[in-house]
Order: sequence, then structure tokens, then C-alpha cells
Amino acid sequence: MRIDESLTIASVPFARYLAMNKVTNIKRYHIAKVYRRDNPAMTRGRYREFYQCDFDIAGQYDPMMPDAECIKIVAEILDSLDIGDFVIKVNHRRLLDGMFAACGVPDDKFRPICSAVDKLDKTFWEDVKMEMVDEKGLDPAAADKIGEYVRFQGGLEVVDQLLKDEGLQKQKNAVEALEDMKMLLKYCELFGVADKVLFDMSLARGLDYYTGVIYEGVLKGHSHAKGASDSEEQVGVGSVAGGGRYDGLVGMFDPDGKKVPCVGVSIGIERLFSIMETKAKASNSKVRTTETEVMVVSAQKNLVDERLKLCAELWDADVKTEQSYKKNPKALTQFQYCEENGIPLAVVIGQSEIEAGIVKLRTVGTREEREVKREELVSEIKKVLQELNSATSS
Amino acid sequence: MRIDESLTIASVPFARYLAMNKVTNIKRYHIAKVYRRDNPAMTRGRYREFYQCDFDIAGQYDPMMPDAECIKIVAEILDSLDIGDFVIKVNHRRLLDGMFAACGVPDDKFRPICSAVDKLDKTFWEDVKMEMVDEKGLDPAAADKIGEYVRFQGGLEVVDQLLKDEGLQKQKNAVEALEDMKMLLKYCELFGVADKVLFDMSLARGLDYYTGVIYEGVLKGHSHAKGASDSEEQVGVGSVAGGGRYDGLVGMFDPDGKKVPCVGVSIGIERLFSIMETKAKASNSKVRTTETEVMVVSAQKNLVDERLKLCAELWDADVKTEQSYKKNPKALTQFQYCEENGIPLAVVIGQSEIEAGIVKLRTVGTREEREVKREELVSEIKKVLQELNSATSS
Repeated sequence: MRIDESLTIASVPFARYLAMNKVTNIKRYHIAKVYRRDNPAMTRGRYREFYQCDFDIAGQYDPMMPDAECIKIVAEILDSLDIGDFVIKVNHRRLLDGMFAACGVPDDKFRPICSAVDKLDKTFWEDVKMEMVDEKGLDPAAADKIGEYVRFQGGLEVVDQLLKDEGLQKQKNAVEALEDMKMLLKYCELFGVADKVLFDMSLARGLDYYTGVIYEGVLKGHSHAKGASDSEEQVGVGSVAGGGRYDGLVGMFDPDGKKVPCVGVSIGIERLFSIMETKAKASNSKVRTTETEVMVVSAQKNLVDERLKLCAELWDADVKTEQSYKKNPKALTQFQYCEENGIPLAVVIGQSEIEAGIVKLRTVGTREEREVKREELVSEIKKVLQELNSATSS
Repeated sequence: MRIDESLTIASVPFARYLAMNKVTNIKRYHIAKVYRRDNPAMTRGRYREFYQCDFDIAGQYDPMMPDAECIKIVAEILDSLDIGDFVIKVNHRRLLDGMFAACGVPDDKFRPICSAVDKLDKTFWEDVKMEMVDEKGLDPAAADKIGEYVRFQGGLEVVDQLLKDEGLQKQKNAVEALEDMKMLLKYCELFGVADKVLFDMSLARGLDYYTGVIYEGVLKGHSHAKGASDSEEQVGVGSVAGGGRYDGLVGMFDPDGKKVPCVGVSIGIERLFSIMETKAKASNSKVRTTETEVMVVSAQKNLVDERLKLCAELWDADVKTEQSYKKNPKALTQFQYCEENGIPLAVVIGQSEIEAGIVKLRTVGTREEREVKREELVSEIKKVLQELNSATSS
């Protein structure tokens, strides 16, 4: 078996791990370096070694339950990153197989024809058809039939329409896959993510080990420039997630061939980071690299003792807190640090505050300060952080 | 330079990274595979490749500020794991150097004598002295002087006592290191961890790249059996954290020799996990491998739609939620799953609950159930989880 060369390479060691350790069910995620075997366009920031986040659900479960959860997770991740609108395209390996059979593609041509379909997101249909007919020797009539089917995209109504299609009705693979799709789309609706999901008959991907549902998460406004020259096109920038069901992979590594059904998605975190950085640069802001919520600031000299006590108090209350590692830092330097690093709150102490049993709580964004009683500091900070968070997310 | 062979090997790639990328200040943690070069006793569960958690603070800062924070972090980690009492031993590389000089150890014997002192936590003084004198050719009088010094351990009062020691007073290294120690112990007090810290003159560790403070976190009740035979002794089980200041390492990798002062600690997470597992087995409980807070349980058939909606609602509210991947799982199976996996709460739905607009909220530990209005479910769950958490941690 040839393994998909560009994505979800991480599924292979995962499947080997399950087989070797006789793990029959697990849900896990993993952020790690992965490797691709093809020759990436290094000039465009693609390398053989890169970071990827994978999650997978392995186990013998009822149809479409873990498959729908994968979509929910991708939607949650892309939503929370706040990088614009996206769509999660779905299709089904067995629907593609059924479609090829219905179009009269000979069995031994399924794979090469599938890899031509895979290019439809970057290339015009005319070029794909030329590849099918001229390079891969497909009957032009069969290619035209494929050209009709791959235009179908939409929601439940499209699946219902295809279930009535005479050609597909004769293909057991296609009918069963369409029933799966119906269930998947219904579950997505119950999960509240139906508006993010698009059933798309042209989605093919590198199909070598997929056996069921396949996914691709695409950012809108980052789509491939069709027909653009090699140097102009934004290669794969739109695609930020991809995966599918691979029920046969674990069995390949198990000495007894015991199968463990799996479904999973890979998130292209390097690509997402680069999009987030570009976006931040454009808005003249910075991508935060820490999660610090509070900076403890001393407004005068010789207050290091008090600062350390305050830090310990806030850390013990699970408030993400920082302070300067200088004994007597300048107030301005500390405030600048907050602003540069996007730290939302500063607790400011001076000698008079200490004597009065208070601190000043400063909202870094507005530079507003107000007095808070020392014993109420933790609860006040938690309240303000909650308000700031709900303000940002709404 | 020979690199410490048993611990904090991860500091080397970290230092190389800082030098190559011209990073002059950073605070970071890292959980990853690390490698040791010595021949570990594999029969006792020690391997060349193992997981370790490191954290390090790099940057030119005021004395003892990041050093004290490292102790605070180790104390927080070991406290939160709830695996019994522990102590964080501290010493100082330059105090050891000053002490050896005060005892008349020739410069070229500092390192081998130091490595003999390093064995004091596992071996009786008599054997260590024999190694110093017979194997390493140290004057017995010098060894005896070392034997006096390494007995010192305690808090600030011991540091003050040593600052008055005639032999050490003549050693600039020793005096400056003792002043560092004083400041460190004071900061630890302000951080509220002084009761966990023990200044210990016998703490040596593999000192090759340490330049200042050194640490070792030791679990009490897991200490080395002194003089025990090889098969009996619990090799290194007590030691679960170790580190120190290494101001020279980054400069070794920088083409211009530019130094970046660093301090860091490694946490032996594999050892900690094995201790937690042993503890859990002894109390007939299990180490939780997931953080699931709520299981959505259907008490009857054909409720999968309602379960999916509830899951989405709880996920969207950031409640860690699971459900069965079976369409119609048995109620008993779902409850057993909660108990086996330590899931604290179950949301139970049946047809009558759905019609009444309520759910049953079950506390898995006590099997108590009570009715909660559907629209109050999220806030009620958050309240109960907070109560359960504060009950466990107190």
C-alpha cells in the first residue's frame, strides 16, 4: 500500500501503536513533528518536517457517531481561532468508488482517476478531464459523467437527490455511503455545526487508506487560485484541516490482522499560525505568546518583597501571574511590558497602597486604575477577567 | 566539557536553541522524550529514552529572582500531585567550590571529590571518605574537613552560621554563594514555600555545567536505603526533580560566545506517574487518564438526538463532556463507564425528563440523583464541579 504522502502521515505510527499495544479503543490528540515523503515546494514555506496536531477516535462504535464528533472538534478549533469564515467539506470514499463504477471507470483506474479528481480544487475541470482521458486513458464519455457528478455539493437535500440517481442506485457502495452521509449531516445539525459543513462530491484527497468519510477544512478567502501560474497560486493555503476514516490501517500492523476502526483529522497548525501572524500584522497587533493574565507592578523602589507575596497569592489562586525579574524595575518599563505582551491587567503597588491595605488594579487596554481592597483582590481579578473574556468572545 | 549524564540532558538542546536563534530571554516548559548517555539499570525500570518535563528561565535578571521561582514551581507541582510530603534541597555550586578550597582540596581534584560527595544520599560517609582517600588520593585530613561541612543542613540560621565560619570566610566563592542562599531562602519565604526548602551542604549532583544554585526535589518516605545491597535499594526513587543554574551553556553554542544566564528544573514525570499508579493501586482506585467532567447518559432507547444536543451544549459551555458512541447503550454500561473512569457527574435523560424540560444530575460517587431544569443545567454543573473540586483539594 502506498501511504498518503502529503497529510495525516501521523496516522501511520498511531495505527502501529494501537496494533502493537492491542489498544482497541482510545480518543486522543497529539501535537508533534510529522514528516511528508513528497518533495514540498520549500520556496513557499513547505518543508518535509513540520508540526501538526492530530486527533483520532479509535474503536468499534455505531456509524457516524465518532465521525460527526471529528467535525464538531474541527469547527470548535477553527471557530476559536477567529481567523474568518470556513467550511468543512465532507465526502465518502465508498461514494467515490460507487460513482466511478456508475460512470464506467474500470476498477484498476479508480485510483489514478481519483487522484485526478483530487486536483479539482486547484485546477479547472477541462484540465482534469484532459488528464483523465489523455494521460490515464479514460473513455471521454466516462469522464464527462464524472464531470456531472462532481458538481454536486450542498446539504441533506443534495444527498436525497443523489439517492434517487439511477446510476448510483445500482451501486451498493454509493447507496450505503449516501445513507452514512445523511446520518452524518443530521448529527452535525444536532451538534450545531451544520452551517459549517458542505457535502462535496468533488472532494477526493489522497485516498489510499481512507475507507469511509473524508474531511477537508478550508478557510474562505484563502481558496486556491484556479489556473493561476505556479508562482502566483497560494498552494494549499485554504486547506487547514484534513482527515477521514481509516478502518484498515491498524489491521495491517497487527500480527493477527485484527482490525480497529479509526477516524481522525489533522490540523495544519503551522499554516494556521502563519495566517494568525499575517492577520495580526495587518491589524498592527501581536500574536500573544503567553497567557499571562496579571502583571504585578511596583510603582516605587524596594517593594520586591511585597511583589513576591502578591505573586504567590495570585499563583495559589490559579491566576496566571508575572512580575519583573528585576528588583527595582521602572514603572514605565513594567507597563510597556504589559502592553507589548497583551497582558490585560496590572496590580500596582506603592508604599502608600501597602499601608492602606489596598492595591491599584489597572486595565492595561484603557489605562484606567481603581483601588481594590487587598483581601478582595483575587475575587475582583477573577470577576474582571471573566468580563474581559466575555467581551472579547462576543 | 562532559555533560551531566543522568539528568537535565534537555538543557543542552535548549541552550543550543537559544544560541542559534539569538534568544536572550524566555520562560518555557517542555514535556518530551529525553535521552541519557549512561548505562541505566534497565531491570529497575530505568531506560536511556524517557519522558521528562523541563522548565527553564533564561535572561539577564537580578540575583535569585528566577531561581526562587523555580522552587515555587516545583513545590506547586509536587503539592498538586498529592503524593505525600517532599523537600526541595538547595545548594550552590560556588559554595561547594569554596568549601573544597577551604578544606585544602587541590583545584584539579574538585570534580572527582564532588562526584564522591554526590553519593552521600545513597552511601554512608565512611564509604564516601574511602573513595576520596583511597581511590582519589585525597589527604585524609581534607576529607575529614569535608565530612564536617557536608553535615550542615537547615534554613537561614545555618547559612548565617556558615557565614561566620573562619575557613569559608576566606573564600570569596563561598561567601558570595552564602549571600545568594540567604536571598534565595528569603524569597522562598515570601513565596510561601520556605517549609518545603532545605539548604543542604551535601547536595552535589552532576555539577559539570551548573554555575550557581542547584536543586533536588525528594519525596519523603522514598529515600535511598543507605548501604542497602544493589538489588534492595530503591535507586533514585526519592529524587523526582533536579536542576540548577547554568550560566555558561548558551555561550558554548553561540559563535560569539555571548552568554545567556539560565536556570531550570527537570521533573521526572515517569517516576512520578509510577508513584501515583502504585499509590492508586494500594488504595484500590485508578489513575484517571482523562479529564472528563460529565457523561451524558440516556436511560432509554432512541435518545441519541437529545444526547448529541446536550453534548454540544455542554462542550460549547467548556464543560468536558463525553457520551457513548453507541446509539442505544445500556444505562448500566454507561454508569459503570463513569465509575471506572472516575467521571464525577452524569446527566441522565429519559423520555419523561425531555417532556418535562428537565434532566437528572447524578453524582457518580454517591449515586445520588436530583432533577435540574434544562435551562439551568450548565450553571448547575459548574457549581457542583466547583464544590467537588474544593472538597477534593481541601
